Amino acid sequence: MTAALDRRLHGHLVIIGGHEDRENNKEILSRFVELCGGSKATIAVITAASKVPDEMWRRYDQVFTELGARQTVRVDLPDRATANDAELAERVRAADGIFMTGGDQKRLLAMIGGTLMDEAMHSALKQRGACIGGTSAGASAMCGHMLADGKADLLPEKGSVSLGAGLGFVQRVVIDQHFSERHRLARLLTVVAQNPYLLGIGIDEDTALVVERGVGIEVIGAGSVTVVDGRMMISNVADIPAGGTPQLIDVRLHLLPAGSSFALPEEIDHPHQLPPGATRNTPDALTDFVRNVTKRNPVS
Amino acid sequence: MTAALDRRLHGHLVIIGGHEDRENNKEILSRFVELCGGSKATIAVITAASKVPDEMWRRYDQVFTELGARQTVRVDLPDRATANDAELAERVRAADGIFMTGGDQKRLLAMIGGTLMDEAMHSALKQRGACIGGTSAGASAMCGHMLADGKADLLPEKGSVSLGAGLGFVQRVVIDQHFSERHRLARLLTVVAQNPYLLGIGIDEDTALVVERGVGIEVIGAGSVTVVDGRMMISNVADIPAGGTPQLIDVRLHLLPAGSSFALPEEIDHPHQLPPGATRNTPDALTDFVRNVTKRNPVS
Repeated sequence: MTAALDRRLHGHLVIIGGHEDRENNKEILSRFVELCGGSKATIAVITAASKVPDEMWRRYDQVFTELGARQTVRVDLPDRATANDAELAERVRAADGIFMTGGDQKRLLAMIGGTLMDEAMHSALKQRGACIGGTSAGASAMCGHMLADGKADLLPEKGSVSLGAGLGFVQRVVIDQHFSERHRLARLLTVVAQNPYLLGIGIDEDTALVVERGVGIEVIGAGSVTVVDGRMMISNVADIPAGGTPQLIDVRLHLLPAGSSFALPEEIDHPHQLPPGATRNTPDALTDFVRNVTKRNPVS
Repeated sequence: MTAALDRRLHGHLVIIGGHEDRENNKEILSRFVELCGGSKATIAVITAASKVPDEMWRRYDQVFTELGARQTVRVDLPDRATANDAELAERVRAADGIFMTGGDQKRLLAMIGGTLMDEAMHSALKQRGACIGGTSAGASAMCGHMLADGKADLLPEKGSVSLGAGLGFVQRVVIDQHFSERHRLARLLTVVAQNPYLLGIGIDEDTALVVERGVGIEVIGAGSVTVVDGRMMISNVADIPAGGTPQLIDVRLHLLPAGSSFALPEEIDHPHQLPPGATRNTPDALTDFVRNVTKRNPVS
């Protein structure tokens, strides 16, 4: 088995902050197709988050085909019965890549959560090393605790954001997208203030957090990934009324622009496995973040 | 000497993020007038930051008079010669309160930096315990290292913000205003990334950081004060080209909404001196911030 094949078996996640380039250099979608296996890849496109699934299918079918994928498979899920269709689920289980479009993550989870399709996606990732991609709503949906809804006001506001049960490809984190463009730091701080167990991840537009499970992470595209760690935080959030602004002291903030790359500390002795350019000294402050998103959690 | 008089001798700063309420409850300007001595107070109004000094003078003369100040003194500084006028400087040296309006902090410093008026303001604060207030540009100008100019883009950008020499009522910090409303966190992170010696302070509109020198701080008004501490930060900012986005790891962020109040640790045994509601246990993560802004630095 070659090193390249070995790497693919880890499984990758390509978590995109929305509005990824589809016209020019297509950096992020190219990387996704490459991680799916390039010209050998069969890619399933799940449009269930969107109210305009036909348009979404045409958009991604075209770009993945342009980028050289061998085959694309339309996974239209108008209802939960379809998400429990055994034949369609088997096609997803056998896919090299699975891509979730934008739309509304609540809609996506309402269709897919707990279905055969859900189980097939986990199986493809964890047993066959498939690559799972998602943009915008499709990015948020990757977490176990999913940011479902919430105001993005100027300041954090207790009770203004709700979480839901996501797909759980990553745990102990919560993902927001269109992050800098829609000024969502206050919203992410609201989540972290009330749920300091979760590390907050904000992904900018045309930017992706690329995760190689068990190995490391990389940021690609045009913007940055912001990480908010509230575990050392001192806060009065439990004592203030809903609607109030919590006092937050000692939130740890990390800004990881495109080009940032970090390996798990135990992987730095295996340089052939590292993401390109990965630092050989992941700072202590980032270790748990890298560990959480790269964790090879069991099939659920 | 009563405790109240004793407190006034410390000197106060009222550092306002702009757009303070002047029509309704006037919370911040009321507090300013009170800290100047209320009905006994003579308040000098410095309009040098503004290109419309007549309008600024009318605005603050009216509101300070409405709020019961005994006397207001117009300090119009059309040129540096006027800022070196001995008679006008003596009136400022003898004032109970000195207020700097909004406008452009570079204009204010170009008129006043290094003049008799500059020296008179420091003398009033440090030798007589006067209260210095400033809003917007007048807030930024209070620092030794003054945020002079800079883009507020979506992400920090190396080289996009310039500092200048400010009035130096507070040292080892840099102040930005209209903070949440104008989405200025990235700009403040730019300053802190390149100048980690400075703690970044972002003050929202209609919000003030009230400093009692040698004692403690309080946040009042409608919004919050954000503090950004980059001293533990790991960054590549020195190695990237101008215009690039720096990687920032382990920036400490504090959000202090109105109502937050902290005393210097050594002052908690003197409860009569504490700001109202001041916590008796200022978290370690905030101690240096409180220490820097309350420091009774010598007359310069």
